[in-house]
Amino acid sequence: MTLIELATKAKEAKYEIALLSTEVKNKAILAAADALEKNSAEIIRANAIDMANGEKKGLNQGLLDRLKLDEGRIKGMADGLRVVVELEDPIGKITEEFDRPNGLKIKKRLVPIGVVGVIYEARPNVTADVFGLCFKTGNAVILKGGSDALESNNAIVKVIKASLQENGLPVDAITLIEDTTRESTNQMMRMNDYIDVLIPRGGAGLIKSVVENASVPVIETGSGNCHIYVDYDADIDMAISIIENAKTQRIGVCNACESLVINEQIAASLLPALNSKLREHGVQIFADEKSRSFMEGSDAATEKDFATEYLDYIISVKTVSNVDEAIAHINKYNTGHSESIITNDKENAEKFLSGIDAACVYVNASTRFTDGFEFGFGAEIGISTQKLHARGPMGLLALTSYKYTIYGDGQIRK
Amino acid sequence: MTLIELATKAKEAKYEIALLSTEVKNKAILAAADALEKNSAEIIRANAIDMANGEKKGLNQGLLDRLKLDEGRIKGMADGLRVVVELEDPIGKITEEFDRPNGLKIKKRLVPIGVVGVIYEARPNVTADVFGLCFKTGNAVILKGGSDALESNNAIVKVIKASLQENGLPVDAITLIEDTTRESTNQMMRMNDYIDVLIPRGGAGLIKSVVENASVPVIETGSGNCHIYVDYDADIDMAISIIENAKTQRIGVCNACESLVINEQIAASLLPALNSKLREHGVQIFADEKSRSFMEGSDAATEKDFATEYLDYIISVKTVSNVDEAIAHINKYNTGHSESIITNDKENAEKFLSGIDAACVYVNASTRFTDGFEFGFGAEIGISTQKLHARGPMGLLALTSYKYTIYGDGQIRK
Repeated sequence: MTLIELATKAKEAKYEIALLSTEVKNKAILAAADALEKNSAEIIRANAIDMANGEKKGLNQGLLDRLKLDEGRIKGMADGLRVVVELEDPIGKITEEFDRPNGLKIKKRLVPIGVVGVIYEARPNVTADVFGLCFKTGNAVILKGGSDALESNNAIVKVIKASLQENGLPVDAITLIEDTTRESTNQMMRMNDYIDVLIPRGGAGLIKSVVENASVPVIETGSGNCHIYVDYDADIDMAISIIENAKTQRIGVCNACESLVINEQIAASLLPALNSKLREHGVQIFADEKSRSFMEGSDAATEKDFATEYLDYIISVKTVSNVDEAIAHINKYNTGHSESIITNDKENAEKFLSGIDAACVYVNASTRFTDGFEFGFGAEIGISTQKLHARGPMGLLALTSYKYTIYGDGQIRK
Repeated sequence: MTLIELATKAKEAKYEIALLSTEVKNKAILAAADALEKNSAEIIRANAIDMANGEKKGLNQGLLDRLKLDEGRIKGMADGLRVVVELEDPIGKITEEFDRPNGLKIKKRLVPIGVVGVIYEARPNVTADVFGLCFKTGNAVILKGGSDALESNNAIVKVIKASLQENGLPVDAITLIEDTTRESTNQMMRMNDYIDVLIPRGGAGLIKSVVENASVPVIETGSGNCHIYVDYDADIDMAISIIENAKTQRIGVCNACESLVINEQIAASLLPALNSKLREHGVQIFADEKSRSFMEGSDAATEKDFATEYLDYIISVKTVSNVDEAIAHINKYNTGHSESIITNDKENAEKFLSGIDAACVYVNASTRFTDGFEFGFGAEIGISTQKLHARGPMGLLALTSYKYTIYGDGQIRK
């Protein structure tokens, strides 16, 4: 089938799925979870082909690890779906209700977005995750996975489609685009008549390409050049513990800390100890002149360091003379993701919370908490770094839109 | 100044404006309103140049009328600003608040979007309107008006900037791009590092161009192929009155009715009378075969008619055998704007409200009510026909984003 034919079917399916009751949707998601487990052998067989191709192609260990599926990971996918079943269904909820002087009764009602397009890389578990979140919110989903995971994704989608069919539900609730060429991705990104939103999930290159080339509305996710600012009066132990956590607990994630901003009044008492702690983890440090003298073994930071999301055991350090300077520095270099201040000064904390332009702004906590599960949303479709529609961790609500339903008795406009 | 220089200044201003109190913002908007009235002679002089150029260029009467400014219209602009002052300021409002088991206290806080870009055509009143709405919500605005209104827009922006300066506020809260070439528009649409959202206001061509070419997130507005479906048991007088209103009260607007869907059971009793009423207004009718026999003087409708937003004294008519068929027809041809059902059947009304994919879905009322003022929002930045961020009439809330502010006492992620 051509992309247009696939998208037409998804669009037809969306009208049907939008009207399903919570009960029917939950039953279908549970059935899909069971089906994934039941057909795990088949999925693992398909995955083995991807793995063999990946090894032949010389994919690095990290990518191969993300690609790999086994019984445990398939159970993880199934359990992920079961968690979604437990979440409250936002669809149909009336979020506002008001009457007009002319007698019109207006109700704002949560509805599915419609057809959600997801472009992602070589993580086949995304396939099941995204299906669960979209189906629960009454959306049809069109998936464009990386070519490295094609066999695995295909196997997963086949199992889910078969399970939907057994339950008498539209199989086009989930569609995998098998053509993994760049042309087909480009075409998908411009199908405004069929796809209501695009969510790219993957590295910075993928996201940039989607933002630059899509005419379909995009929710930009992922990139995080996150800062921690240590204020003049911060608790030194707390600062070191939070920075250690935010930098080293998991380096490859978007909410990891990439850059430190240090009040120069606290530099002498904080930095030598912090330096030792970071060295224990093998963190390489690019520091400005004032901080370098307190951080043995550090290298000189350039402008480029402050703008880099390392996703590695590397961090940059910048000294400032006050919180205003810290805010200005962070607003200049951050990606609107997560920023934290370590302070005991309540006024400075509020200044930081108000002045920083980012999805999540913390006082005395690690940036690593920016996450749908940590926020208690029970699920996550991604972390938005844009300001439209959804910002920060996105749970089920981010997959909804609304409509106004208006009840009249013959009103006309004068 | 280059576009980048202008945008850099707007970006700097946004951080300052975001922190202004409601009182300061209101005072500045009132001062701008007064200044517009005080400097009306200068604005009218500038407008006279645009008008003379427009006449020389052969702009049609409709465009010239939209372009023209006089004392009354300038007072209208000023009063529009005064209305915005009366509206509740959403910025800073905490819309959600929750604690996590680890002690983190999370507050979701409404914040400005940042820098709002507006691309519009030859209506200089938009310049003041947009400034008021954006400034009230703490946003900086970059305006790209049509070349036909350049002198008028320049004069208005100059007055507002002078008024901001007198009040000690950042003059870069409002920026007019004087370079009205297509290249500068294209550049503006791709300034993701400076502009947080683009709102095109104007005809279908302008909006399509922005949607297709922008990499900055867009809120799509305006296009309305609105339908009225008359169900089998509708009140005939009500149906005629609502259709007359929605089609003829104002033809050039996006919430005007462009297409009728008629249950064939009611065709014989409704259509002859409706035909006479529409003929009184000189409405040309393109009807399908079944309805044509009841509508003397009508022409045969083609597929293209059902897809056309006429914005004229023209309407298309399609017969269907039931509400499901009506919903399917409307979902196929509508633009997601406003659709209405005229019925006494409550079940069909609910079916229509649930099944129709549009921003505003009416029962027994004219589609002409889709409007920020009619909805009681007190102002309108446009009517969104997309599903992300804002849908339907957009008031001040559509110009806000949110951030999560998170209070901890040393939490790190395990």
